[in-house]
Amino acid sequence: MVYINDNFTRLPETYLFSEIAKRVQAFKNEHPEAQIIRMGIGDVTLPLPKTVIEAMHKAVDEMATGATFKGYGPEQGYSFLIDKIIEHDYKALGVELATDEVFVSDGAKSDTGNIGDILSKDNIIAVTDPVYPVYIDTNVMG
Amino acid sequence: MVYINDNFTRLPETYLFSEIAKRVQAFKNEHPEAQIIRMGIGDVTLPLPKTVIEAMHKAVDEMATGATFKGYGPEQGYSFLIDKIIEHDYKALGVELATDEVFVSDGAKSDTGNIGDILSKDNIIAVTDPVYPVYIDTNVMG
Repeated sequence: MVYINDNFTRLPETYLFSEIAKRVQAFKNEHPEAQIIRMGIGDVTLPLPKTVIEAMHKAVDEMATGATFKGYGPEQGYSFLIDKIIEHDYKALGVELATDEVFVSDGAKSDTGNIGDILSKDNIIAVTDPVYPVYIDTNVMG
Repeated sequence: MVYINDNFTRLPETYLFSEIAKRVQAFKNEHPEAQIIRMGIGDVTLPLPKTVIEAMHKAVDEMATGATFKGYGPEQGYSFLIDKIIEHDYKALGVELATDEVFVSDGAKSDTGNIGDILSKDNIIAVTDPVYPVYIDTNVMG
């Protein structure tokens, strides 16, 4: 017999942003000519700058030959990236950080969920209303 | 007062693969000329095939101009990818799947941890010994 985490049954039926995306897509299918102004979710809209595109092409080419191919990276991020983050984002502002004080994750949303795992269920938390939905949902799940 | 999830204190001091990676790196620094045969972790070693490299370059170029730039993708994966997965990985084997039965995640390790979140703490689980360390650690954390 397998028991589920009952907290999941307390989540709202639909995830806000997912629901908005589905409704926008449905409208777009019915009105392909419509110019939609999206106010439902903050998103990036401008193309990536040339230096980023060039760096990404270079990284792809590294994966094409045995001499430069990379397998699994270190799970807290490549040291060449961590060193640059410390140098440009922190040292430039007068903040000293050691390499083991920076880790490269897969993004703020998974982090928000994972931080909850570190904390005990005995904590009492308060969230504002309205609030970014992830802050509520991850706490309800936990 | 903030309480932590005490289960984390029951994790072994070091993560096996991370410890192996650190020791190999230390040896490499001391013996830069050594050809190391790595038997500590399964990893990919061959470069990516040409068609994959070409597709990745094409995807990078899409991010370079406003007309083809993509912002946040749908959180369960792009439908063009899900459709191809169903067609080639399942339909080709005679398995019929609907698009909402396939989701593209960020990998098996995070999934292993996240699946644990879905289950209740009242479950009793058994793992083999030896076992892939993630299967133990994610259960200890939960």
